Amino acid sequence: MDLGNKRVIYAKSFLTETQIRVLELRRKGLTQEEIAKILGTSRANISMIEKRAKENIEKAKNTLRIYNQISAPLVIDIEKDIDALEIPEIIFKKADEEGIHIKYDTLGMLEFIKKNAKQFIEKRVVKEPFKIYVLENGELDIG
Amino acid sequence: MDLGNKRVIYAKSFLTETQIRVLELRRKGLTQEEIAKILGTSRANISMIEKRAKENIEKAKNTLRIYNQISAPLVIDIEKDIDALEIPEIIFKKADEEGIHIKYDTLGMLEFIKKNAKQFIEKRVVKEPFKIYVLENGELDIG
Repeated sequence: MDLGNKRVIYAKSFLTETQIRVLELRRKGLTQEEIAKILGTSRANISMIEKRAKENIEKAKNTLRIYNQISAPLVIDIEKDIDALEIPEIIFKKADEEGIHIKYDTLGMLEFIKKNAKQFIEKRVVKEPFKIYVLENGELDIG
Repeated sequence: MDLGNKRVIYAKSFLTETQIRVLELRRKGLTQEEIAKILGTSRANISMIEKRAKENIEKAKNTLRIYNQISAPLVIDIEKDIDALEIPEIIFKKADEEGIHIKYDTLGMLEFIKKNAKQFIEKRVVKEPFKIYVLENGELDIG
């Protein structure tokens, strides 16, 4: 593990050094049992450490998602009964008016919508209104 | 503010509802003084809430950065004395061997390196070895 810069990041994260160590060893393919032996503790304890680490990673993701939505330079309301295939044109038009560059082309955006807004769309038609957030980095989010 | 889905995300983040409210109002251009009046508290208190929110956002960023580095399918050591202009070729070659698609072209990667590895490079030459992490989503990180 690197020293220097990284120590600073570790100190200012929601992961403990032990949690990081366990995640690293898991990534290398070790079982919880094997990690328990290396760290001189029980498998149940490793399981708990891993669980808490993953919960904190999930909470960190949600934290940034909320922050990115708050900071979004453009939020577009997608209304009921719109044809899903028309959404990219709506978004590109508004982004263009605001001088914002989006990281997707039409096809990529349709894929993104298909994957991330499926709970709002049925048979190509918007069944429940939703918002598309155009983020500062040109990415999209849906909420 | 939306209800439903969002409430769940809020509950599972490192931001409190009050912190989110303050960030939203700040984003809308209100001063801390104005927000203090709306929420019936002091400017100093709003200042503290905003500070803690930003600290947690920073810690969330670091958390995901650590996790993305641990999960990186490819980590490349960039050695001392290498010409910085040769780095993209090194990275593309290794990524190609591993069947990993990187989200940058040569020029974009050079810009990324110039911006994010400047503490390791002097006059186009690597002065201190560092690592480039190719992340699962095709993004890069440096550490």
